[in-house]
Amino acid sequence: MSETIHSYVEARRQPFLDELFELLRIPSISTLPENKGDVTRAADFVANSMRNAGLENVEIMPTAGHPLIYGDWLHARDKPTVLCYGHYDVQPPDPLELWTTPPFEPTLRDGNIYARGAADDKGQMYMHIKAVETLRGLHGKLPVNLKFLIEGEEEIGGKSISHYVAENPEELDSDVALVSDTALYAAGIPTLCIGLRGLVYMELEATGPSRDLHSGLYGGAAPNAVYGLIELLAKAKDAQGRIQIPGFYDSVEDPTAAEIESWRSLPFDQREFLDREVGSSALTGEPDRMVLERVWSRPTLEVHGIAGGFTGAGAKTVIPARATAKVSFRLVPKQDPDKVLAAFRQWIDRNTPAGIRTELRLLSSAPAVMVDPSHNAIQVAAKAFSEQLNQKTVFIRSGGSIPIVGDFARHLNIPTILMGFGLPDDGLHSPNEKYALENYYTGIKTIARFLELYGTAQ
Amino acid sequence: MSETIHSYVEARRQPFLDELFELLRIPSISTLPENKGDVTRAADFVANSMRNAGLENVEIMPTAGHPLIYGDWLHARDKPTVLCYGHYDVQPPDPLELWTTPPFEPTLRDGNIYARGAADDKGQMYMHIKAVETLRGLHGKLPVNLKFLIEGEEEIGGKSISHYVAENPEELDSDVALVSDTALYAAGIPTLCIGLRGLVYMELEATGPSRDLHSGLYGGAAPNAVYGLIELLAKAKDAQGRIQIPGFYDSVEDPTAAEIESWRSLPFDQREFLDREVGSSALTGEPDRMVLERVWSRPTLEVHGIAGGFTGAGAKTVIPARATAKVSFRLVPKQDPDKVLAAFRQWIDRNTPAGIRTELRLLSSAPAVMVDPSHNAIQVAAKAFSEQLNQKTVFIRSGGSIPIVGDFARHLNIPTILMGFGLPDDGLHSPNEKYALENYYTGIKTIARFLELYGTAQ
Repeated sequence: MSETIHSYVEARRQPFLDELFELLRIPSISTLPENKGDVTRAADFVANSMRNAGLENVEIMPTAGHPLIYGDWLHARDKPTVLCYGHYDVQPPDPLELWTTPPFEPTLRDGNIYARGAADDKGQMYMHIKAVETLRGLHGKLPVNLKFLIEGEEEIGGKSISHYVAENPEELDSDVALVSDTALYAAGIPTLCIGLRGLVYMELEATGPSRDLHSGLYGGAAPNAVYGLIELLAKAKDAQGRIQIPGFYDSVEDPTAAEIESWRSLPFDQREFLDREVGSSALTGEPDRMVLERVWSRPTLEVHGIAGGFTGAGAKTVIPARATAKVSFRLVPKQDPDKVLAAFRQWIDRNTPAGIRTELRLLSSAPAVMVDPSHNAIQVAAKAFSEQLNQKTVFIRSGGSIPIVGDFARHLNIPTILMGFGLPDDGLHSPNEKYALENYYTGIKTIARFLELYGTAQ
Repeated sequence: MSETIHSYVEARRQPFLDELFELLRIPSISTLPENKGDVTRAADFVANSMRNAGLENVEIMPTAGHPLIYGDWLHARDKPTVLCYGHYDVQPPDPLELWTTPPFEPTLRDGNIYARGAADDKGQMYMHIKAVETLRGLHGKLPVNLKFLIEGEEEIGGKSISHYVAENPEELDSDVALVSDTALYAAGIPTLCIGLRGLVYMELEATGPSRDLHSGLYGGAAPNAVYGLIELLAKAKDAQGRIQIPGFYDSVEDPTAAEIESWRSLPFDQREFLDREVGSSALTGEPDRMVLERVWSRPTLEVHGIAGGFTGAGAKTVIPARATAKVSFRLVPKQDPDKVLAAFRQWIDRNTPAGIRTELRLLSSAPAVMVDPSHNAIQVAAKAFSEQLNQKTVFIRSGGSIPIVGDFARHLNIPTILMGFGLPDDGLHSPNEKYALENYYTGIKTIARFLELYGTAQ
């Protein structure tokens, strides 16, 4: 073999980047109805890239929401099958004014690609496609069988793919899934994520008076929907961040002593985490637990946004009639999303202040996931990763949620390799989201190498 | 005298209404920068109406904010001088979708004028001008000396007029002020308001992380600006609505037994107040105090609006970096707005949750006011009112705030007659604000009659 994965990718740095930039320019914001056309354009772009890479049977499948893309290559007889997953949709970019360069004009700066979706997940999903292209270019064929399933609803709960996986287990039958939507523990450290938190995302609406009232004429006797919502939500956690809903922690398990021990051996500078990543005056949360434990293995209740009453410039003296908050739980293994939701509903009924009516709407729901690090595919992935970065692969968890991983486990009965190349300060979901340029190329090479090794490891 | 006030007004119902409609069509929203031109147009309209009514020296005075309008008629030798006050600015009309007819297209429906500002205060301010026109039309002169001072910033704190009154006490020297910006206790009951609550209106901003963070990756360890603001504000009141700021109630006095007694004799149906006016499932507030006491003589803390994080359609999993709330105190007599503000600042410093920084900005401030019901002008006003509505005039308080009344007391050393013709369900500051058509004419007649009586009562 005259050419290696390394030299093949290095020779194509510019075109591989140009293509990604083209994809990043499409504002495929799945949650905003006005961007529906952009989401479709992104799907077309990804499908074409898959065809160009040599995948077959590429199909854009319409759903009740945004399209799913399928493609495969199934000519590696007696070799295992890898199911590659990614998503082409992104979070809204607001607040826009905080971006140094526009979110949908990808820009190279200080070795980073700045754009919404650069790391989450367009930049990482696209590595899979380029890894396939690289292997086909080098060998004319692939070392394993591949199925690609790429969605456009990850940022809004991924309902369509979840239904699709549940209904098509035979078509998707594989040995392992491969997902690149996580981060290295730190720059240069090969990292496999073996645990994810679940997510129950809700909208809570409070109503008080039947219309906005004059706060002078009614203040003191009329309920205030904004204040009622504030009172209710404030009761949901104590000052240490412990959730006050009865039974909430019943099935929460602590990590094993060995896992805690391995987390303790990871480099972690709490001062730097606070100053450079979080940027607040102090950290919060359960004081008796280390930070990695709080964000990886403890459930949370978060309010993502709140709106109600008059919030324009100046003053308006109303008692607001309505207020709404976006609220979520992050769940850990063994917590049942349905039970948590039911307990929250009951708690709301019991704790809503007098004069206030509340309505809770579920927007999405997924349980937490754990994979077994001793699984063959995980071990091969760790080897490819170690080789590439010349360092021992670490196993960590992530506090984020990738609901599809749970669906793969439940319906296809396969583990998922969470092999991501982001960095902790990439600013996912924030202004100035970035992805390290070099990690884009490292990702392509590592994934290609993993597929090579996995094809010979059986 | 062949013509009476009554017949003069009755003969001019249509033109008097047409002119008011013209004024109501101008969206003079003082708090919105984009309506600045409309506020100026409204000032021009009012100044012209004053000239047409026979007032002299009419002048539109520019200020740092919106223009003040002055005019006078000072030819009633040895007669007292009445200072007429009103405002031509209005509250924003949002939420627009709840209006049956557009807020700035005044519409007659079921005997009511529906429009933003119909009752607060264009409709009532305009009665003063029409009362002057009526007396001049009947007698060719006026029974008392008059000074008019009309502002365009009442809904945003009235800073300019407050400075003007403080700096021009001689020019404004009068015996009594007359303000029509309140309501009858109930339809048909002649009502003079002798007490108003004060108002300290503020904006409270909370910041947590330096940017919006991914709630999966940081949830459990990073402070949330929205939740921090929720926690802080929830601590400010207990479940009965009692304000938890140390010293807040120190100078609060209960109404006298006689005043409480007179309030008890007023018709008040709590069920109807709840169902028809407030429209919530229950009333709130201090359970040991009657509703009229809660809204007239007890201080409040109200959150008028709150905004922070993601509030669009769908889901976004951020830990918000910023959140803002509009917060006010209504104050009762003897409470010092400056002391209350200082105590609140100190309380905020002590109670802001870990990891959150707060900033409190004062938007406006005015103390509560009480006037002496035995004052000669008040007694004459009560007589004119009783005559007009054929019923004994009642003395009440209002929970609202009219800061200028405090300025008149402090700088001009005069009491204010609060003679308003609104109704409790007029929906001030709310969608579908209305003003009873008949009360518009009754107001013109009563004010004209008061001026007549006051000119002969000395």
